[in-house]
Amino acid sequence: MQKMFYPESVMVYGVSGSPNNLGRNTVENLERFGFKGSVYLVGREGSELNGRKIYRHIEDIDAVPDLAVFLIPAKAIPDVMERCGRKGIPYAVIQSAGFSEFTEEGRQLEEKLLETAGKWNIRFMGPNCIGTINLDNGLVLPFVPMYPDAMLKGPVSIISQSGGVVIDGIRLLTFENIGFNKSISIGNKLNLNECDYLSYFMSDPETRMIGMYLENFTDGRRLMALAQQTDKPIVILKANKSASSHQIAQFHTTALAGDDEATDAALKQAGIHRAQTLQEMIDDFKIFSLPLIQGRKIGVICRSGGQAVMLTDAVHQHGFELAKFSDQVFDYVKKEVRAGVIRMTNPLDLGDVFDIRFYIRIIEKVLQEPDVDGVVFGHTYLHGVSIPPTQELIRSAKKLSDRYQKPVVFLMIAGKKYFFTLKETADFPIFADPEQVLKSLSLSREHFTNRSAFNKDPLLSSLPMATGRKVESTPKQGIMNPDEVFHLLKSYGLPVADFAMTGNITEALNAAKNIGYPVALKMASPGILHKTEAKGVILDIPHPQALADACRNMEADAYLIQKMAAPGQEVIIGGRQDQEFGPVILFGLGGLFTEVLRDVALRICPIHAAQALAMIEETKGVRILKGFRGHAAADMKALADCLVKVSKLLVENPDIGNLDMNPLFVFEKNKGCLVVDAKMERI
Amino acid sequence: MQKMFYPESVMVYGVSGSPNNLGRNTVENLERFGFKGSVYLVGREGSELNGRKIYRHIEDIDAVPDLAVFLIPAKAIPDVMERCGRKGIPYAVIQSAGFSEFTEEGRQLEEKLLETAGKWNIRFMGPNCIGTINLDNGLVLPFVPMYPDAMLKGPVSIISQSGGVVIDGIRLLTFENIGFNKSISIGNKLNLNECDYLSYFMSDPETRMIGMYLENFTDGRRLMALAQQTDKPIVILKANKSASSHQIAQFHTTALAGDDEATDAALKQAGIHRAQTLQEMIDDFKIFSLPLIQGRKIGVICRSGGQAVMLTDAVHQHGFELAKFSDQVFDYVKKEVRAGVIRMTNPLDLGDVFDIRFYIRIIEKVLQEPDVDGVVFGHTYLHGVSIPPTQELIRSAKKLSDRYQKPVVFLMIAGKKYFFTLKETADFPIFADPEQVLKSLSLSREHFTNRSAFNKDPLLSSLPMATGRKVESTPKQGIMNPDEVFHLLKSYGLPVADFAMTGNITEALNAAKNIGYPVALKMASPGILHKTEAKGVILDIPHPQALADACRNMEADAYLIQKMAAPGQEVIIGGRQDQEFGPVILFGLGGLFTEVLRDVALRICPIHAAQALAMIEETKGVRILKGFRGHAAADMKALADCLVKVSKLLVENPDIGNLDMNPLFVFEKNKGCLVVDAKMERI
Repeated sequence: MQKMFYPESVMVYGVSGSPNNLGRNTVENLERFGFKGSVYLVGREGSELNGRKIYRHIEDIDAVPDLAVFLIPAKAIPDVMERCGRKGIPYAVIQSAGFSEFTEEGRQLEEKLLETAGKWNIRFMGPNCIGTINLDNGLVLPFVPMYPDAMLKGPVSIISQSGGVVIDGIRLLTFENIGFNKSISIGNKLNLNECDYLSYFMSDPETRMIGMYLENFTDGRRLMALAQQTDKPIVILKANKSASSHQIAQFHTTALAGDDEATDAALKQAGIHRAQTLQEMIDDFKIFSLPLIQGRKIGVICRSGGQAVMLTDAVHQHGFELAKFSDQVFDYVKKEVRAGVIRMTNPLDLGDVFDIRFYIRIIEKVLQEPDVDGVVFGHTYLHGVSIPPTQELIRSAKKLSDRYQKPVVFLMIAGKKYFFTLKETADFPIFADPEQVLKSLSLSREHFTNRSAFNKDPLLSSLPMATGRKVESTPKQGIMNPDEVFHLLKSYGLPVADFAMTGNITEALNAAKNIGYPVALKMASPGILHKTEAKGVILDIPHPQALADACRNMEADAYLIQKMAAPGQEVIIGGRQDQEFGPVILFGLGGLFTEVLRDVALRICPIHAAQALAMIEETKGVRILKGFRGHAAADMKALADCLVKVSKLLVENPDIGNLDMNPLFVFEKNKGCLVVDAKMERI
Repeated sequence: MQKMFYPESVMVYGVSGSPNNLGRNTVENLERFGFKGSVYLVGREGSELNGRKIYRHIEDIDAVPDLAVFLIPAKAIPDVMERCGRKGIPYAVIQSAGFSEFTEEGRQLEEKLLETAGKWNIRFMGPNCIGTINLDNGLVLPFVPMYPDAMLKGPVSIISQSGGVVIDGIRLLTFENIGFNKSISIGNKLNLNECDYLSYFMSDPETRMIGMYLENFTDGRRLMALAQQTDKPIVILKANKSASSHQIAQFHTTALAGDDEATDAALKQAGIHRAQTLQEMIDDFKIFSLPLIQGRKIGVICRSGGQAVMLTDAVHQHGFELAKFSDQVFDYVKKEVRAGVIRMTNPLDLGDVFDIRFYIRIIEKVLQEPDVDGVVFGHTYLHGVSIPPTQELIRSAKKLSDRYQKPVVFLMIAGKKYFFTLKETADFPIFADPEQVLKSLSLSREHFTNRSAFNKDPLLSSLPMATGRKVESTPKQGIMNPDEVFHLLKSYGLPVADFAMTGNITEALNAAKNIGYPVALKMASPGILHKTEAKGVILDIPHPQALADACRNMEADAYLIQKMAAPGQEVIIGGRQDQEFGPVILFGLGGLFTEVLRDVALRICPIHAAQALAMIEETKGVRILKGFRGHAAADMKALADCLVKVSKLLVENPDIGNLDMNPLFVFEKNKGCLVVDAKMERI
């Protein structure tokens, strides 16, 4: 895809001399941003623009452009694509709207477009987008006028399903002095999707961080697998969470809403950071502009008692600790400044010391402490400090941060008058809020930890690429027979109680004899989902006479006879095929915990034993399993093993759309588990 | 306190001509901000400053200033206060540090100071503060240079326990075009405290919103009672949450950390909004600058599909709904603009319509909808729009918001180049983030609802003013005897099982005979807190022989015999005396819910029945009480009644430092409750 972002020649299709012509904006953007390659203009009426010839037909150009950009009505596009194909153009950007996001007719146009592109092997961006902005070579394709002085070049590249969000993102990245390298608005992602672009940006040396705005995932599993292979921070803002947003999004860029909890689990598992707002994404990039923090010990230097209190609150809130400073630090403070009013602690509140050079030296002293993993410097910009010294301070903070490879977080609320000047000239992120600072540092720490984990544990990044089957709407039909369910579970090595499926009382009595009393009797008509409510469950049946009576009372088409289980701690394992991420596994404690408290952990499958244990640990209810108030600790190893086996079952049987193992009994340590009841639905 | 904020004359004590003199800064601040009253300068060495005479002694001034400001070393202050008293000066601001926040000697100085002020009836701010800034009359007292062009006058007044936070708050309020009217840094609040200032600001016509930064509460109950009496929004940033912040805060302004959960409950109960960061406080004031939103129906108008999706997500996230627009709105859109590309829905995505005048008219049309409670306008500031029309749009949004008394929230991320100009000239808050907008609107709605509730329910604002006793450290000694506990509960009308306290087996047998079998036997040695763990509980004893055996095995000093209770749903009621807010009551479901899941509700006592029911509803576990999976619904009325009675007990017995009713059984509807076990500690 290198040529899509670094083409040697571009053809802009749909240009005229009219001031309202959109293609004209693209051509002028390329001019303003100094794009060095050849630019060919094509428009029905010919003529010229800014001294450039406007060709009437693609065929008139006596070269093969690397990239075609379209700004013509949707219905004309398939035909023009055909001609591009014949000419041998390999890449296209289709900005035009009016496709599947708009009408059924538009959807049909998309089919034609895909067919043509497939035939000629053209890879394209869009439709329904504003295209690429590459500040590295001036390839600025949007159909709205853009200006170089409003954009700062930097390390972030953005992939967005909305053009408006790209514009806002660029503004915020510029405003915060982070800047961006490439941004793309990917629209309906009919051909190339977010994974293709992500893969490219992962290999692009100019891109050091990646931001994505998505309204759906085209291939969630590929996205996860890709993300696990890069050290570059990826931050995703996933909108379109609610049913009603879904409607708009579908109109907007043909997005289909996924399950938001599965999204959370998937992104976390892949080491992708999820931002809830655009501002949060930008804040994340601010912290990723600094070296990652590798530990939990923070050194705080500030000049306001209130700030020291708030920073300390935030340090604890976000799982960090205040480092213990050595005497070296304190002796230095005592030697250098009127230290009578300075208390020798961390936070080090410098109070009314106004010496910028001292600030710089004390930041360095604290960075030199082996116990310090990062420094927060709170600059209360009061009196006696003007702009140039503060600028020097910021420059030094950046240098020290780089030299010691520990983050120096610069915290300041400047007066309105100075704010812009300082922001403008600071080539370093400025933070404004103690709480935000520590939240950001915890993200930095998370990224550091993820990176190590993925490097250490190759299994974590070996997610099979196969996506789950798309769920067709065949509800109810697919509830599986209980004996089929239990046989399948058994074939995966899951511990199920001895069972038999029978059609009448005589069979039931024979089966119970083989299994041994006491037994449980369950209605086995496949349509019944909640057997307890339907009075379809009778437990602890002690002898044949009782079983015969029970069967007679139940009046079912089929009976499931099960060996009665000894009581264990109830837990639930669930599973389903997510449209975006494939098989998802759920773990939670019994009824109340899951249904009332939603105390559950989710993962995208497959998972291995360590991940299964982490799932269990993630629930609050784990305290019950570990032995609450003198109860015996449960067999966590056996439970984790069950989770791994269910995960395998889900991966290998993508036709199992829903699985609900409820309850699974977990017994005391070394005594294993037992599946007491389970339901599955085939899709 | 009017004269403290609007003195006719001010004496600044501690002035010299030296450029480093702090008193000089105060005098020059008063000059720069055009303070109209008389200003008397006093300094040991006399001389003059900027043409003003510096008196050597207070006694030399032949007038009685309304307010004295001190900028001299701590140890000199008590003596000078004495002389102010003799002179008849009623108010003082003591900016000097070096008191209890610093040393034990400083603490003793504070005692002297209080004594002197008491003798002469002087009311003072501080010590250890930067004093008052009143933009209404130019009374700007801080000892650091301040400049009028860096401060915007507006409707917010600020009370802060930290000088640094005042400065930051002022900057942010100015930056956001909200502005402030008065701000005070209250330091160690030795004499006047936050409640005194709050009371003044509540009555100050220039103050329409109140912000507070606090590290502790001097009188939490008075604060609550005050807040319930005003319609002005109060936002509190309460720092100093963790043990370690506590240490700093104590040093900083002698704050004592309270219990953060009780703080949450108390502020909520009083209708005070708690901000977690300074930025959040400022965001809160942005929304309070607009009319309150009175319902849940939002109209969204925007120009980016991505923004529409994010706004819709946020609308649902924060408990709002998208209003249904009538045909009037849609017909108007169709009539006025090229509506072919506009989908007739809410959100109304205006896409590429660039007509500012149309935006203004459509905002008005939507405001006119009876079903719409507030409008969010997302201005994607793309091309074809320059600064003046956007300024006109913002002015119109403000006007329409006022005219229709519904909030019009203006959402925009402007380019860096324009951002400052637009911010600077907009006399109206500008929001940048869809999520923040709806979060803010939910706060606005909460304030509207609180106001109505307080106006309707006088009980809610009739909190007794008495504070809980200060907790002295006498642990263990105060665990009360079980029979004392049960008698006390009974005397408040709480349902306790028949019980008897006995010292030996014979008495136990007699008691059980009276009570009737089956009975429960409990170890009644007062030191035992966890009887179950200590094997001090035997349940369901069927007859005398079993009771005799049980007593012999238990070997206790005293036995509690209780009528065995029928099983009910276990809940917990807890109580304690909070240092800052007095009696606090806690409700939660049994063991796991409370101890593992911390699913509890807290209130400051007293509470009435409606509040008790609201507490129960607040827990997730309420679903169990309402009948989960076919279980019978519990007697909520009886449970609420128990909560009200415990609340009364806690209020009337401030010596009960801790109360733990665990479990309380709740039976089916109309069948009441029963206290099964309870512990209390006297402090």
